[in-house]
Amino acid sequence: MPQLGLLPRRTCAALLSQLLRRAACIRAVGCHSQVAQAMLTSQLKSHQEKTNFIKTPKGTRDLSPKQMVVREKILDTVISCFKRHGAEGLDTPAFELREFLTEKYDNESGLIYDLEDQGGELLSLRYDLTVPFARYLAMNKLKKMKRYQVGKVWRRESPTVVQGRYREFYQCDFDIAGQFDPMIPDAECLKIMYEILSELQLGDFLIKVNDRQIVDGIFAVCGVPESKFHTICSSVDKLDKISWKDVRYEMVAKKSLAPEVADRIGDYVQRHGGISLVEQMLQDPRLSQNKQALEGLGALKLLFEYLTLFGITEKISFDLSLVRGLEYYTGVIYEAVLLQTPAQAGEEPLNVGSVAAGGRYDELVAMFDPKGHKVPCVGLSIGVERIFHIVEQRMKISGEKVRATETQVFVATPQRNFLRERLKLIAELWDAGIKAEMLYKNNPKLLTQLYYCEKTGIPLMVIIGEEEQKAGVIKLRLVATREEQAVKREHLVAEIQKRLSVLSLA
Amino acid sequence: MPQLGLLPRRTCAALLSQLLRRAACIRAVGCHSQVAQAMLTSQLKSHQEKTNFIKTPKGTRDLSPKQMVVREKILDTVISCFKRHGAEGLDTPAFELREFLTEKYDNESGLIYDLEDQGGELLSLRYDLTVPFARYLAMNKLKKMKRYQVGKVWRRESPTVVQGRYREFYQCDFDIAGQFDPMIPDAECLKIMYEILSELQLGDFLIKVNDRQIVDGIFAVCGVPESKFHTICSSVDKLDKISWKDVRYEMVAKKSLAPEVADRIGDYVQRHGGISLVEQMLQDPRLSQNKQALEGLGALKLLFEYLTLFGITEKISFDLSLVRGLEYYTGVIYEAVLLQTPAQAGEEPLNVGSVAAGGRYDELVAMFDPKGHKVPCVGLSIGVERIFHIVEQRMKISGEKVRATETQVFVATPQRNFLRERLKLIAELWDAGIKAEMLYKNNPKLLTQLYYCEKTGIPLMVIIGEEEQKAGVIKLRLVATREEQAVKREHLVAEIQKRLSVLSLA
Repeated sequence: MPQLGLLPRRTCAALLSQLLRRAACIRAVGCHSQVAQAMLTSQLKSHQEKTNFIKTPKGTRDLSPKQMVVREKILDTVISCFKRHGAEGLDTPAFELREFLTEKYDNESGLIYDLEDQGGELLSLRYDLTVPFARYLAMNKLKKMKRYQVGKVWRRESPTVVQGRYREFYQCDFDIAGQFDPMIPDAECLKIMYEILSELQLGDFLIKVNDRQIVDGIFAVCGVPESKFHTICSSVDKLDKISWKDVRYEMVAKKSLAPEVADRIGDYVQRHGGISLVEQMLQDPRLSQNKQALEGLGALKLLFEYLTLFGITEKISFDLSLVRGLEYYTGVIYEAVLLQTPAQAGEEPLNVGSVAAGGRYDELVAMFDPKGHKVPCVGLSIGVERIFHIVEQRMKISGEKVRATETQVFVATPQRNFLRERLKLIAELWDAGIKAEMLYKNNPKLLTQLYYCEKTGIPLMVIIGEEEQKAGVIKLRLVATREEQAVKREHLVAEIQKRLSVLSLA
Repeated sequence: MPQLGLLPRRTCAALLSQLLRRAACIRAVGCHSQVAQAMLTSQLKSHQEKTNFIKTPKGTRDLSPKQMVVREKILDTVISCFKRHGAEGLDTPAFELREFLTEKYDNESGLIYDLEDQGGELLSLRYDLTVPFARYLAMNKLKKMKRYQVGKVWRRESPTVVQGRYREFYQCDFDIAGQFDPMIPDAECLKIMYEILSELQLGDFLIKVNDRQIVDGIFAVCGVPESKFHTICSSVDKLDKISWKDVRYEMVAKKSLAPEVADRIGDYVQRHGGISLVEQMLQDPRLSQNKQALEGLGALKLLFEYLTLFGITEKISFDLSLVRGLEYYTGVIYEAVLLQTPAQAGEEPLNVGSVAAGGRYDELVAMFDPKGHKVPCVGLSIGVERIFHIVEQRMKISGEKVRATETQVFVATPQRNFLRERLKLIAELWDAGIKAEMLYKNNPKLLTQLYYCEKTGIPLMVIIGEEEQKAGVIKLRLVATREEQAVKREHLVAEIQKRLSVLSLA
């Protein structure tokens, strides 16, 4: 171990942070080398004492006021779009009966947060908003519903916080449940994704589309044994991160798939295109023999027709490598990726993964319904955290300033002993619905008050002093221009409202 | 056991529900009489099979779309008020490191939901928004902040669901942290409570005010032994539910307080009034000898002066019986109660307890800060769930209708094979920012479409059929009046926007 005492402060800090990270790794891989642990612990302890480990749980974070403004803006855009498409709101508890969550997420179940058995029911934190929605439909025997839900979900994943991946994160879901004519709700879901990603101005994006039936069909005609469907699926899923060569290696060497089967799969899953690729696949000699594949391709053909009417096909790509991880999808699946972040040249590229995804899940509600009644569903989920990360980065780069409050008017005085006057005045403003602040001091300095307005971006000041009081007026000051005007006390509220509407702040 | 088969259905249902309740009781008190349990279990099992127990966890609930609209409206009022007073937003994780929550809630710690130890940190769901706020301040070394936070908190209380009491519920908190001149932030908190309760139109209300230092002073001068401070405090806390006679009995018979001490306490805690009672107490021969009481009374005197300037004293009552349960309060405390629900005569009175509460807590941040640095705080919390319950009841009584969606326009057709036309048209509306819906059917009946609009309250319809298509127009129909007008296709969006602004729906 290096001797920390001999290193310059900055090196020492860097080293400690490295040690901390390494310690986290060691915990993560479950290594218990006692010597290494003891050495680290002693280093960490003194570091912790220095930085005083008050923290949020691993993989979670607070959102500061300025971050809140950014997130609110994103959520507003998303929710407005959901409402534009006629969705109703829904809220479900943060936790569900544990039995309702298990077996819904396949091999991801280990990532569910369980609550301690404190006597009573066995509970777990929700893992997404889809399963609670299905539970809600079954519980209330609803046969159709178009709903949106915005809320936190929790997953015990190893957090890669830098890429906007957390253990606690927001999801914004829109789903259409009900037995309808094919592909009409599915097309609307894609339209919604298109609208939201366009409005958020995240830069160029692409929505990849496929169908679970096509995936199954391809695997069947290529000769994947049914026992290997699942694991080969998860290999294909990696094609957006690693090359086909590496995926093929994994399939053949690690998962013992016959090389010729892998090659056949490779022929399909490396293709992507528009409606013409759908047509081409419909003519494919092998695929056209498979009932499932044919059904999926027929569905996509119709979907593309509707998307053309919506005018959004330029952003849609039929991508045969898209498989989507979650177990419950049964039909069309989709995932939106950013093609390029709005970052300028010379910056590190942001790898944020998919920013929205979804698909059709026709069997999930039946899993809850005691009689197994089906309610077909299709929906989408917006990845707020990742979008937040991009917007935040963009604002940092552009130097765009965010106000953490919406205060319109500041009530100030240049004199001592004017607290009571200020209190009366500010109450009048509040009662008129004006957003107003003052300093909680008996005798604040005028400079401090001016500085507060400039720092927090409050556009208007009302100033009251002896002189004004005698004349029955109040001074109204525009913070930006420093222009001041005396206003009769009784006209103050009206005058402020006029000014705010000019500033478009009313 | 009664034989269920011989009883009429309704009696049987009532009996089962009684059994269920009793079963819950048995669990709660930890009774394990195996015979009783076995008997109940067999009854319960058949009951459960019948009702198919898909449910939300005990003490939690879903919020249906119409309920969501009501809650959103309440939250909007609350948040608007917080913003009017210059508060910044903040978000903290749903769970915290367990060690941060313990010892903050005194004897209520048993009500905290713990997460299972799944390898990693020990976590618990937050119990309120105050402790996470204090943790945030200490962690970020912030010396002042005015913030609001709206979010769910979780408490494992025996839920009395009918009174709007849940294990998962929303809190809306506003707090001012920082070293300021006395009582200015405290007065603003009361002003905020006044504004919110007035705006929500919940009927007449009263804000009870006291000071922890006065409570301590009274107990000291009455001769309560220090070891009994706490338990006597909790007896006094019951004075809003039971009579002084019963409280006195509890103190003397159950808690072995000397009768003359109890009587002295009774002399004080049964009083309430305005500023004149503060003055009177300041002259009280015993109380005026106690330093703490004097400080508290001095604080309240100043507070009342500021509240007079704010014009809200008619709703404020200095109430010596108010003690507030939570451990962390150190100064002024307050609690708002509804004097009368807006329900009409002949209805069951709603007992919803306090709808807002708060106080000063000057020591909490220091509990997190490793060097024990103090950050004085004062704040309030709005009890959304209880308010929601009242508003919901009021709406039920008045028959007021709530729309679950905001859809402005419905796209309909009277003809078969007009799906493509409808899709093109609705996309045009969405792209113009108009909230629009259509049925997901290839060939819906016109009557079904009309009925959908009436049922969901959509005010406008655009109708497209062969005739209109030939003439290059669209029919615009006002659902309420059934008045129809042909509009040129290219003017449709503008015409709709005009109509919506007339309807004040734009």
